[in-house]
Order: sequence, then C-alpha cells, then structure tokens
Amino acid sequence: MTTIEELGRRAKQASRQMNRMGTTQKNQILALAAQALVDEQEEILKANAMDIKAAREKNMPEPMVDRLALSESRIAGMAEGLTQLIALEDPIGEIISSSIRPNGLEICKKRVPIGVIGIIYESRPNVTADAFGLCFKTNNTVILKGGSDAIHSNMAITKVLRKAIVAGGGCEDAILLVEDTSRETAKAMMRLNQYIDVLIPRGGAGLIRTVVENSTVPVIETGTGNCHVYVDASADIDMAVKIILNAKTQRTGVCNACESLVIHKDIIEEALPAIAKALREKHCELRGDEAALEVVPDMKKATEEDWGTEYLDLIASVRTVASVDEAIEHINRYNTGHSEAIVTKDYANARKFLDEVDAAAVYVNASTRFTDGFEFGFGAEIGISTQKLHARGPMGLKELTTTKYVIYGDGQIRE
Amino acid sequence: MTTIEELGRRAKQASRQMNRMGTTQKNQILALAAQALVDEQEEILKANAMDIKAAREKNMPEPMVDRLALSESRIAGMAEGLTQLIALEDPIGEIISSSIRPNGLEICKKRVPIGVIGIIYESRPNVTADAFGLCFKTNNTVILKGGSDAIHSNMAITKVLRKAIVAGGGCEDAILLVEDTSRETAKAMMRLNQYIDVLIPRGGAGLIRTVVENSTVPVIETGTGNCHVYVDASADIDMAVKIILNAKTQRTGVCNACESLVIHKDIIEEALPAIAKALREKHCELRGDEAALEVVPDMKKATEEDWGTEYLDLIASVRTVASVDEAIEHINRYNTGHSEAIVTKDYANARKFLDEVDAAAVYVNASTRFTDGFEFGFGAEIGISTQKLHARGPMGLKELTTTKYVIYGDGQIRE
Repeated sequence: MTTIEELGRRAKQASRQMNRMGTTQKNQILALAAQALVDEQEEILKANAMDIKAAREKNMPEPMVDRLALSESRIAGMAEGLTQLIALEDPIGEIISSSIRPNGLEICKKRVPIGVIGIIYESRPNVTADAFGLCFKTNNTVILKGGSDAIHSNMAITKVLRKAIVAGGGCEDAILLVEDTSRETAKAMMRLNQYIDVLIPRGGAGLIRTVVENSTVPVIETGTGNCHVYVDASADIDMAVKIILNAKTQRTGVCNACESLVIHKDIIEEALPAIAKALREKHCELRGDEAALEVVPDMKKATEEDWGTEYLDLIASVRTVASVDEAIEHINRYNTGHSEAIVTKDYANARKFLDEVDAAAVYVNASTRFTDGFEFGFGAEIGISTQKLHARGPMGLKELTTTKYVIYGDGQIRE
Repeated sequence: MTTIEELGRRAKQASRQMNRMGTTQKNQILALAAQALVDEQEEILKANAMDIKAAREKNMPEPMVDRLALSESRIAGMAEGLTQLIALEDPIGEIISSSIRPNGLEICKKRVPIGVIGIIYESRPNVTADAFGLCFKTNNTVILKGGSDAIHSNMAITKVLRKAIVAGGGCEDAILLVEDTSRETAKAMMRLNQYIDVLIPRGGAGLIRTVVENSTVPVIETGTGNCHVYVDASADIDMAVKIILNAKTQRTGVCNACESLVIHKDIIEEALPAIAKALREKHCELRGDEAALEVVPDMKKATEEDWGTEYLDLIASVRTVASVDEAIEHINRYNTGHSEAIVTKDYANARKFLDEVDAAAVYVNASTRFTDGFEFGFGAEIGISTQKLHARGPMGLKELTTTKYVIYGDGQIRE
C-alpha cells in the first residue's frame, strides 16, 4: 500500500501542474467526471454494497448505514454537484489589489490555489466527489481520507474521478485517496506539513477535536453548531414561535439547527407556553432552568451539561435571562461560534446582539438555518468554518484559495 | 502569580469591551501610550538594566545583549511606532460585501476584531509595545509572552501601557503579560483554545517550530526566510549583481535577505565571477555546487544542508541549474515560502517563475528585501506570514481582523 508520505509527495508534484490549468479545461474535466460517475455507477454501487454488507455484519445502526448507502439517485446527486460547479465563477487569478510604489515596483496581490488540501471525513461517500469538485475547481490537489466503513465506495469513486481527469488531459494525482484507514496513518497525515497545506475535517465533534489536537498542519475547523435563538423582551411572539420552530425542527441533524432557547424573563410567561406547544407538536423535548420550569412545569430540568450540548436531535434547552447582556454572555460562553439569532423589535438590542455575539453568523429576526453556502448565494460549500482564521461561515470556492504577492521590477534594490 | 487560564479569562472578558471601542478613543489611547512610554522611560530603563545585568551574569553573547538593551532612542522608537498607527486607516467595521437574497434577507460580511491574540516572542522588549499597538488599533486584546531574559523590561512596559489605557477610559486587560516565563506555562498557553483565538510566534525558527508542534490554538507562522535569487540565462548581469548584493548584504540578519543563489548554467561563467567579486568585497562567504566550483574554484563545497539553511549571516550558497524548471523545482523544495526573485529578460520565464514558485512574494528583477509592510505601503506589520491560511506576506492591520456575517431579517424561515 502506498505510504502517506508518498501520497503527499505525489500530491505536491501534481499541485504544480494543477497550478497551470485554465478554467476551460477544469470545467471540461468536471463535466467528464460528472458523466463518468453516472456511466460507471454499477461499479460504484457494487463497491458500496460491500461496505453496506460489512457494516450490517458489525451491526452498524441503521441511520448510519443509511448515511453510507449510495443509490442511483444519490450518485446522480454527486454528479449534479460536480456539474453545478461548472457555472460558478472561477476565483483563481483575480488581482485583489495592486499598487505602483514610489520606486516603480508594481505590487499585485493575486488569488492563487492553496496547493494541497487534506480532507478527513467519516462515512458519507458523497464527500469524496463533493470535496474533489471544490478543490479541483480552485486548482488544488486533494488528499482524501474517508472512514474505513466507506473504503470500497471511496476507492470506486476515486477511481472513476481519476480516469475522468486523465481523459480530460489532467494529472490523475489531483485526487488521491488514503486507502490505509488506520489511526496511525491518520495521525501521520495530520503531521505532513511538508506536503499538505491545510487540513479540513468533516464530521462530528469527536473527529474535529482529534484533528485539532493532533495536527501540526494548519486546520480549518468546521461544523459543530451549538446555536441559540434569543427571544428578547420586545419580541413579536408569533415571529419567535415561527423562527424557533423552523430553526429547531426543519432539520434536526444539521449544524445550523437551534439547540438552545434563551428567553427574557419579562416575556417568558407569554412566550414560552406558545413556543413549547409548537415544539411539542413536533415531538421536541424541552429542558429548562428553574424560571422556565415555573412557566411550563412539565419539562425536564436542564443541567450545566445541557447548555453546552449540540443535541442534533429533537431536544432543546431553555434558559431564562434578565437582560440582553446576560443573553449575550450566556451565548458567548456556551456557543461554538456558528449561528446565533435574536428575535426583537428593539433597535439597540438588535445592534448590541449583532456586535457582541461572537459567531460566524449573527441574525436578527430570522432562522439560524440559513447559514449555508446555497442560502447565502455562494453555491456549493466545503463546510461551515467556526474558527476565525482564514474563513468564517460557509466556505465556498474563494475560501479554498490563498493569495500571493507578485512583484514586477526593473532592477529595484532597497536603499 | 496569575495563572494562564486566569489571564485567558480576563482577556476574553476585556475583548467584549474592546469590541465596542471607536476609532477616536483608540487613537487617543495610542497617543497617551506613546507619551507615557517617553514620560516613564526612567522606570523602563531601570527595569531594562536589571535584565541586562542578569544577561551579562550568565554570559549572554553581546549581540543578544544588544537586542535586549533599551535606550532613550529605542524607547522613542517604540513611542513613534504607536504614534504612526494613529494615522493608519481603521479596518474594523468595513462591510466587505453585502447582498439582499430573494427572500429579503440582507446578508453583510463585516470586518471585525479576531478577539484575543496571543504573541509568543523572544528577547526584544520593543515587541511588547509594537504588538500591543497593532492589536489595540484593531480592537483585539493581546496576551504577550516574552522571553525570560526580558521579563523586567516587559513588565515595566506593560505597566506603562495599561496605565495609559485606563487614562483613556479603556479596560487595562486589553494588554496582559504572562509573567511566568516557564515552559509549562508556554505549553499551557498554546492549548488555551477556550480563550485565545490565534497565536503568533515571533522569533527564530526554533521558537516557531515549537509553537507549531505544540499548539492546538490556530497559529500564524511568521518569519523564517530561506530566500533565493535565480539568475536566468537571459539575465542582465549588472542588474543581477546589483540585486544579489542588495538582497544578500544590505542587511543580513533579516528574514527577507537572500540566502541562496540559483544560476543558469549558460550564464554562470560570465555571471558568477562578477557576483562572487561583489559579494566578497562585502566579506560574504560562498558555498557552491560542483559546477559553481568549476567557475569560481576558491569556494567551499555546498552540502545538502546548505540548500535548506537560512544563514542570517554573510554566507550564500550557489546552485547551478540547466533550466528555469529546474530552478523552480529547487526553490520549491528548499524555500520556506517567503520571498523569491528571478532576474531575467525572458517574458515566458518570468511568467513561469511568478506562477509556479510557491512563496508569499515572488519578484521579477527586484531585490527580495522589499517584502516588508512599510515597503509595500501597508505601514507597521506584526510579522511576515509564510503560511497560506488567513494571511500571506506582510501582516498589517487588516490581517489582524476576521469577518462575521451579519444578517437582517423580518421573520424569514427556511422552507
């Protein structure tokens, strides 16, 4: 089996060739790759069946088997994802700023590929095609390390994509799959600073923590979202109910779903019964603090642990506060820097919340569920960054680039 | 002594207050701080004398003692650095982009402070004031950890700055000094993800490596520069001599100084004797490969180690190549991603070099010594980033900011 160092070396080499590829050729290869996924779906489904069989043999829970499973329509979705990238504007080569210095030096800040991007992910095999597409459109090479559960599917998908790249005149090593899914190899990948420019983990909180703690390669953290909706004293209660219902229950297993309600004490008697009724109709469990329990007694009492938990399930905690300041403090203490919303009619409180809540996306009077590349109008995304360096919020094509100063001289030296 | 966790907690708390401070007040405090450094220089110099005495007692080499030493004029320089920041444009609050989505949501991407910045540095006490100034102007709070050699100087400078902040109506915890200079505390600081948003090491390659290898807090790598000047077959030899002399000898101990020459074999017989003569007049030692030794025999032979060494001294290696491709390959293998130059008259080779050399700054026909915030026209810098995430090249005020999506709604929910 190829070592991770060897994969790194090949990716680095391929990245120099990728650097030169123009938009036309990139788009042609994306089209070829999309077509190839459909044309060769039989092979992919056969490989996927092996993964599914192995998963069932070790009694993987059905929801996880479902994540792993491919079908004709899911493969069509992967192909459609690649096709959509063709229409997106190519960010590479943009001159972001330029100036001519007094000594005549012309300094341009140019958008360029990052180089080699490592993606570490769990069991969804569609990530293989999605991540490849975004990296390829931005002239990056990608080293993919998926979960062991999906290894046959990932190998089959990668094989199809590599063939398509060659058919389009590119270098197949623009996508490389780590076939050795051991922990040692994962750890070695996280320390491959010589070859990998950035690592993006995609998956649950545990995976992300492991990568952050073990990686010396720069990491972009994505995905965990302990998101809050704060119902201010002045909130329109109908609007609050509608927004909370949407943020909590429209889809529960996603990072921009609301996990916790924060309610001003002056409105809780009026607002909480209506909110609780609406959520319970959707079978959502509530866990409240003392003050919330006084208003809606048949709730479980929330513990300290609840405030910091991303349930990804039909559960929500309820916290009562005496002011917008207390709400902001609570949110800044427990949130994961993803998406936070206030429902209010008060101008000053809206401004304060937007300014002082520390998160990638802060909303007034809207559902947190909008934090998403397509909803923001950026198109496909590689994830939602919850850190502050490089990219924050939905990461589209631009976030997979870096810059370089290109300087044109005529013999200038520094005095 | 205050624990690092306690410092982190206080910095985070202060960062919420810093978040609200407007440009006028920030500039007033910078002016007060500059004045205070001058007014209280006696205290600072007294503390510095203690550091110098301790350094001499443990036989610190004189060039290092010189780095540590403050004087009236060096303190004036620190004050001047703070004063210069006043005139620089405040990047905070800029709306970078905005759009109104079809559903009426207004999405703005806004430039905001990073939050809490940690700086780990070595013996120069002027970094204390410089780093504070840049972080303060961008509404960040800063936790500074200098070297143990400079602890008394750093404590005195920090005390003066904290008093000035309070005098200007700010929160003194906008600057915090880690007084415990032990390695354990440094390691704990590198894992303080809960409170520190980014770590910037400033110092030699060893310090930077330690931070990169031990930190779970996101790091911006700065400073190491194994920079090359490549003399293409078509180079103007006079220009090449002038540029190399400048890049190598104008100042040797800096990260943008040239460490290695790469010369095309077709021009080496003509170019190298002239280059060697000029460099030797400045007492620069040369270490060449076989082909270089054939042209200028009285050189030391370069070893594999030489290609990867940032000498920061009057030494340069000389590598011969058969093509611009070989030059690019050599540079991409051994450089540190800082500054790289080609001297050429050839259009295609210039373009190839600019496109394919992987570095923060790539030059045609100019000295690498220009990679610097002031030379680029950006003003003061916190360092030169040699990584690809977040910031690349000279890091000024803008690079000490992040962004946040601010979203204005009227009750929108996701369908």
